Amino acid sequence: MRKTIIGVMGPGEATEEDCKNAYAVGKLVAERGWVLLCGGRKIGVMDEAAKGARENSGLTVGVMPTADPDDISEAVDIPIITAMGGARNNINALSSDVVIACGMSTGTLSEIALALRGGKKAILLNNDEESKKFLKKLGGESVCIVESPKEAIEQTEKLLSG
Amino acid sequence: MRKTIIGVMGPGEATEEDCKNAYAVGKLVAERGWVLLCGGRKIGVMDEAAKGARENSGLTVGVMPTADPDDISEAVDIPIITAMGGARNNINALSSDVVIACGMSTGTLSEIALALRGGKKAILLNNDEESKKFLKKLGGESVCIVESPKEAIEQTEKLLSG
Amino acid sequence: MRKTIIGVMGPGEATEEDCKNAYAVGKLVAERGWVLLCGGRKIGVMDEAAKGARENSGLTVGVMPTADPDDISEAVDIPIITAMGGARNNINALSSDVVIACGMSTGTLSEIALALRGGKKAILLNNDEESKKFLKKLGGESVCIVESPKEAIEQTEKLLSG
Amino acid sequence: MRKTIIGVMGPGEATEEDCKNAYAVGKLVAERGWVLLCGGRKIGVMDEAAKGARENSGLTVGVMPTADPDDISEAVDIPIITAMGGARNNINALSSDVVIACGMSTGTLSEIALALRGGKKAILLNNDEESKKFLKKLGGESVCIVESPKEAIEQTEKLLSG
Repeated sequence: MRKTIIGVMGPGEATEEDCKNAYAVGKLVAERGWVLLCGGRKIGVMDEAAKGARENSGLTVGVMPTADPDDISEAVDIPIITAMGGARNNINALSSDVVIACGMSTGTLSEIALALRGGKKAILLNNDEESKKFLKKLGGESVCIVESPKEAIEQTEKLLSG
Repeated sequence: MRKTIIGVMGPGEATEEDCKNAYAVGKLVAERGWVLLCGGRKIGVMDEAAKGARENSGLTVGVMPTADPDDISEAVDIPIITAMGGARNNINALSSDVVIACGMSTGTLSEIALALRGGKKAILLNNDEESKKFLKKLGGESVCIVESPKEAIEQTEKLLSG
Repeated sequence: MRKTIIGVMGPGEATEEDCKNAYAVGKLVAERGWVLLCGGRKIGVMDEAAKGARENSGLTVGVMPTADPDDISEAVDIPIITAMGGARNNINALSSDVVIACGMSTGTLSEIALALRGGKKAILLNNDEESKKFLKKLGGESVCIVESPKEAIEQTEKLLSG
Repeated sequence: MRKTIIGVMGPGEATEEDCKNAYAVGKLVAERGWVLLCGGRKIGVMDEAAKGARENSGLTVGVMPTADPDDISEAVDIPIITAMGGARNNINALSSDVVIACGMSTGTLSEIALALRGGKKAILLNNDEESKKFLKKLGGESVCIVESPKEAIEQTEKLLSG
């Protein structure tokens, strides 16, 4: 009865493109019937991914770094209150069947690194050349580079069925 | 859109009575449309509470102390993999709008204590005289003593509307 | 080369007697050559225990719940910055060879409970009758009731040599 | 009275060169009178850094991912038992005044990323071109590239006095 959980990670201070991608990925996750897991805050990629899923009848889990209710995205159905700051990034990584990263930041990088450390696959969307080269070299086949939300979901489907 | 989350805590090595109570509480939680949150393992109160909710069309979240998939109760829909042992008890406590404890153990006690520390209310079901006296003295109005699953849910409703 | 580490736990908002006991215990810990571990904040039992050790040439470790440098007791030599709030109480418990609790609060109770859960011994100093009855019943031989800092250290010595 | 704490991070499965560097860095840390903090396990960079410090009269702290005493490096004086796996990497990062990374792995990368996220400086020793290009671009002035243990310590001194 365990549901499939897809983590969508990315910067809190995100570019417009990252936000657009996150929303689109969230929507596609919801349409597949998967649960959307994110960092839960009402900013950037976390917020947009949750909105994309929530506004398309998806179920959303937000793994919160703080205990402040005001930090929770309104698109989060189930806030998990860790109150443990960046250490919660490991929970995001381990709880996701697949991690999709939209954009890059130090927090996002830690989630990708912890996902790989935990034996998870990471899909990188909208990353610069340096990120891609480095993370592909570090993660090998556990890292997939994609160019669009649609491709991110196709890769996710492949990884889930693999 | 945030859902109401009720935590049901209790021993992994539980008495038959604690298990029966946990199942009944889980069932009543599901019937109210609340999300059931528990420690996620396939033993004792955690397992029974999840079953009670799951077999009555509820949604169940299990906050796992380990990263081992074999530890996850089959009645858990959404496993949150913390892999942080007893430190995850703080997440259980903080993520629950109300904590209901069925029975007592060192782990359960830590969850009650952390719930009170975090400003949450705790409902004690099927506890011995020493537990009740001590925890009531420590927690004051934040601790409610109840005698049945039905009364636990009635108290929960009161606390949620309070 | 591993050093003996004694955890001294207790309320942040402590009574004068708890503070006096904590200072005395910290002093005796230092005099034995043990490392003093506490919750690290500059209030209550944590602060006094660290001072008692530090002012008597002891080495002090503070396991901090926050990342704010202003929270650190000036008597802490080695602050471990967890920034994970009450979840750090499990680290306090597991990192201590023996836990001595001066007084009682919800946080202190969680540390005692997590210590017992983790197979550690807990020594209770200056607790009320309800605490003692309940925790002795719960923890059995893993819980020692003492009446003075001196007795706490004598018990610690017994447990360490046992 | 707070001591200066230098974190030395790196792979558990380390190259000979990373191990040699870690030992040399640990030695230099001890000679400066700083506390050496590492991941605490008896393998790879963690073990060598602790040995380098310990065998040169330094004080060593190991932030352990497990609760298993057999995992602790014999060169660790003060094991902090987190039992929270990769989530402890955030504690390593936040507790260090400066982080020195010898070599690269997914775990090491998460520590660098979490250090930068937490406002810390990271010094990279013996990293490949892809790591350096990417992390320098991500971290800007918070990332220093060095070529030798001696240079790592010189940079650390600069950062501490800055």
